[in-house]
Amino acid sequence: MEANTSQEPSKVPEIETDEFEDWFEEFTHLVRSGRDEEIVQQLSGSHYADFAEVLHELEYDEAFYVFRLFQAERQSEVLVELDEDYQSEFMERLQPKEISTIFELLESDDITFILASVSPSKAEEVLKILDREDSQQIRVQMEFMENSAGRIMSSDFAAVYGTDTIRKAVSKIRKIAKVVDDIYTVYVVDQDGRLMGYLRLKELLLTNPSNKINKIMIGSPLSVHFNTDQEEVARMFRKYDLVSIAVVDDKDVMIGRITVDDVLDIVQEEASEDIYRMGGLSEDEKLNTPVFESLRKRILWLVVNLATAVLAASVVSLFEETIQKVVVLATLMPIVAGMGGNAGTQSITVVVRNLATGELTLNTWWEAVRKEISIGILNGLFLGILTSTMVYIFKGNLVLSFVIGSAMFVNLFIAGTIGSCIPLLLKILRIDPAIASSIFVTTFTDICGFFFFLGLAQYFLSYLN
Amino acid sequence: MEANTSQEPSKVPEIETDEFEDWFEEFTHLVRSGRDEEIVQQLSGSHYADFAEVLHELEYDEAFYVFRLFQAERQSEVLVELDEDYQSEFMERLQPKEISTIFELLESDDITFILASVSPSKAEEVLKILDREDSQQIRVQMEFMENSAGRIMSSDFAAVYGTDTIRKAVSKIRKIAKVVDDIYTVYVVDQDGRLMGYLRLKELLLTNPSNKINKIMIGSPLSVHFNTDQEEVARMFRKYDLVSIAVVDDKDVMIGRITVDDVLDIVQEEASEDIYRMGGLSEDEKLNTPVFESLRKRILWLVVNLATAVLAASVVSLFEETIQKVVVLATLMPIVAGMGGNAGTQSITVVVRNLATGELTLNTWWEAVRKEISIGILNGLFLGILTSTMVYIFKGNLVLSFVIGSAMFVNLFIAGTIGSCIPLLLKILRIDPAIASSIFVTTFTDICGFFFFLGLAQYFLSYLN
Repeated sequence: MEANTSQEPSKVPEIETDEFEDWFEEFTHLVRSGRDEEIVQQLSGSHYADFAEVLHELEYDEAFYVFRLFQAERQSEVLVELDEDYQSEFMERLQPKEISTIFELLESDDITFILASVSPSKAEEVLKILDREDSQQIRVQMEFMENSAGRIMSSDFAAVYGTDTIRKAVSKIRKIAKVVDDIYTVYVVDQDGRLMGYLRLKELLLTNPSNKINKIMIGSPLSVHFNTDQEEVARMFRKYDLVSIAVVDDKDVMIGRITVDDVLDIVQEEASEDIYRMGGLSEDEKLNTPVFESLRKRILWLVVNLATAVLAASVVSLFEETIQKVVVLATLMPIVAGMGGNAGTQSITVVVRNLATGELTLNTWWEAVRKEISIGILNGLFLGILTSTMVYIFKGNLVLSFVIGSAMFVNLFIAGTIGSCIPLLLKILRIDPAIASSIFVTTFTDICGFFFFLGLAQYFLSYLN
Repeated sequence: MEANTSQEPSKVPEIETDEFEDWFEEFTHLVRSGRDEEIVQQLSGSHYADFAEVLHELEYDEAFYVFRLFQAERQSEVLVELDEDYQSEFMERLQPKEISTIFELLESDDITFILASVSPSKAEEVLKILDREDSQQIRVQMEFMENSAGRIMSSDFAAVYGTDTIRKAVSKIRKIAKVVDDIYTVYVVDQDGRLMGYLRLKELLLTNPSNKINKIMIGSPLSVHFNTDQEEVARMFRKYDLVSIAVVDDKDVMIGRITVDDVLDIVQEEASEDIYRMGGLSEDEKLNTPVFESLRKRILWLVVNLATAVLAASVVSLFEETIQKVVVLATLMPIVAGMGGNAGTQSITVVVRNLATGELTLNTWWEAVRKEISIGILNGLFLGILTSTMVYIFKGNLVLSFVIGSAMFVNLFIAGTIGSCIPLLLKILRIDPAIASSIFVTTFTDICGFFFFLGLAQYFLSYLN
C-alpha cells in the first residue's frame, strides 16, 4: 500500500513531541466523555499510520471505541498498521459481520498476517463467513511456511496475456487498479497462468495501443518460489533494485507478488532481531513490553550465562593454591579472559552479520575462518607483547611477564578460531548463529584464558615469587 | 532503477555456488587470453548486478579490461553497482571523454555518489567536461551534507502542473519516461516549482483525459527537506509505506525525489553499521578487507579495552591482601563482574537499537530508563538470591553467601541504570551510542562488580575464614 494522504491536512501532531502530548491529553478527554463527532474530526484527515500510532497510545478498550467510530474502509487501513497485540484484541471484539466487511477491503497477505495472530477458533469462524473464493485463498496462504515468500505475498496483482494488445491490457488494468492499490509492474502470463515476462506501467503510456504485449514485454523475469525464505527475497530486492517480484508455484504459475514496502519492513525487522539476539534479548521484546514480561524473557539468558560463569570459575578454583601463593595472578587473570571475549566478539560479529546478509555462505566459509585465525594470531602477538611489557614494567618479574604474554597469545588465537567457527557450526546445525554464538565463544575464551594463564603460572610457580 | 533483465537468459551462474566457480575459472581464462568476443558473449545477457559481482571477483586491471569491452549504456548500469573501491579505480583509468558519456546516462544521485569516492582533482576535471546544466546540478548536490536527503535524491523526476489536463500530463510524462527509469509517482507543482500534490501513475490510466490534474491529485503530499538525515527518511518510508518521496528546499520548491531502492540499501547499511559498531568493529570493514587492514581497524578497539581491563584489575589489586586470606574470592569475583556485563549489554541493546529505529527519542527517555532500572533491581534480587544460595550450598559460609548476593544485587542494579543512561548520554553528546556504549558500561560493571564484592568481603573478613 502506498501513502494515501487525503486532501484534508492532519490534525495529529508528530508523535513523541510536546505538541503531541498536549494534543493527546485533549484527545483522551474527548474519548472519555464520548464526544464522538469531535473524535472523528480530529482523526479524519490523518494518515493511517499516524491514526494507528494514536491508538497504540490508548488502552485496548478506548482504542477500540475510537476505531469503531470509523467506516470499514478507514478501519481496514488502520487495522493493518496496528501492532499484533492490538490487532488480536480488536479481532476478538469485532463482530464476524464487521470483520468480513473489513477483510473484503484488504489484500490476502494482510488478512493472512492478521489471522495468524488470533486464536485458531476465531480464525476458523472468520474464514467461514468470508467469500468462498477469498477464504480458499487465505487457507492456502496460511499453509505456507512462516517467513516464506508465500506468506508475505499478496495474491492480488495485475496480469495480462502476451497476446493482448496494449489497448486491451490497459482496459484490464483499469479494472484491476480499482482493487489493487499499488501497480508498478504488470505481469505477463500465458493461458495456464505461467509467468512469461513483465513490463513497467509507464511502458503502457509510451507505446502504440495496437501493439501486442509480447512485443514490448521484458522476458525471463525474476521470480521466487513460494517456499523461498523472506531473507533471500530481501536479498534479491536489494541486489536487483526491485519494487516488486512475482511469486510462482512448482509449475511456474504466478500465484502472487511481493512489494517493496513489505520487504523494507522485513529488512528492518530481521536486522533488529539479529541485534536483539546478539545482545542476549528475545527478538519480540519491545520498548513497551511490561517490566515483568521483559524480565521473564531476559532472565533465562542471564541464568544460562551464570551457569557458564560458574563453569569458568571452577577452572579458577583448580588453581586456588597457586593464587594464594602469587596473589597478583588474581589481579591479572580477568585481563586475559576479558581480552579473549572482546576479540571473539569481533570475529562472531563479522561472521554472523555476513551470514545474515548473504555475503558469506557455507561455500566460502574457509576464507572467512582463515582470515579470523590470521587476525587472531596477529592480535595475539601484538597484545601478548604489549601486556607482557606492561607487566614487566610494573611488576619487574620476567617469568610473570612471559606467562601473561603467552596466555594472551593463545587466548586470542583461540578467540579468532572459535569466534569464526562456532557461528558457522550453528548455521550448519540450523540454530540461529545470532542467538547462541556469544555464549559459546565467551565461555570458551573465559575458560581458556583462566586455564592457560593460571596453568602456566603454576608450572613456573617457583620463579614467580 | 528497476531490474532490467534482457530477453536473453544470463550465462552467469548464481554466485557462491560450485557452478559459478567452474564458470568463473573458464571466464578468467578468456580474460587472460584476451578473447574479447567470448567475454562479451558470456556477460551480455546478465543482469547488471550479476555483471558487477563478476567484476568484483577480478583484480582491478582485469575487471577494467572486461568493463571497457562494453557500450557506455551497459557501462553506466554496471558502474553504479560496483563497490566504491572498484568505482574509484575505474574512474582513475577512464578517459574524461568516456566518463562524460557514461555520466550522461546516469541520474544525479549516482553521479554524486561516484564523484564522492574519487580525488577532488579528478572530480573537478570530470565536472568541467560535463554538460553545464548537469555539472551545475552535481556541484549543488555535492554541497549537501553527507547522509542527507539532498545527497541521496535524484534530481530527475516526473512533475506536471495542477492546471494541466490528464492528456497534457501524459504527453509530458511520455517525454520524461524516456530518460527517467522508474516513475511510480507523478508530482504536481505550481508555476514556481512548489510541491502541491502527487498522483500515482495508474491514476492517469483510470481517468477521463480531459480532466484537470488538480481535480484528481492527492493534496498535502509528504516531503522531506534536503537536510533531513537519511535515517529519518528511511523511517518515513517504513511508516508510510512509500515508494518515493519528494525532496524540497527552504521555499518548498521540489528539487528531487528519493526512491525506495536506495532506502532499502540505507536500512540494510545502517543496521550493519550498528551491528559492527556494537561488536567493536569499524563499520567499513568488509569480508574481503585484507588481513592487515582489518587488524589495524580492530586492534585500536582491543587496546582501548585492554586499558579499561587494566583499570578494573587495579581495583582488584587493592584487595590482594584480602584475596590471599580468602582465596575463594578470586574464584567468585569474575562471576559478579561478568553477570553485570551481560545484563548491561541487554540494556544497551534495547536503548541503542530503539534510538536507531526512532522508536525511542530523547523525549521519552525516562520511560526506558525507569524500565531498565526496574528490571535491574528485579534481576539483582533474583540472581542475587540464586548465587547466594548456590554459594551457601557449596561453601557453607553464610557471610560469604551474603557478600556475593549483595554484590550481585548492587552490580545488576548498576548495570540496568548505566546500561540505559550511557547510550542516551552519548546520543545527547552526538556520539554514536552503538560505538561507545559497551566499553563504558562493561568498564563500569567490571569495576563495580569487583569493588563491591571484594570491598564487602574485606569488611566482613573476620567472618569469612
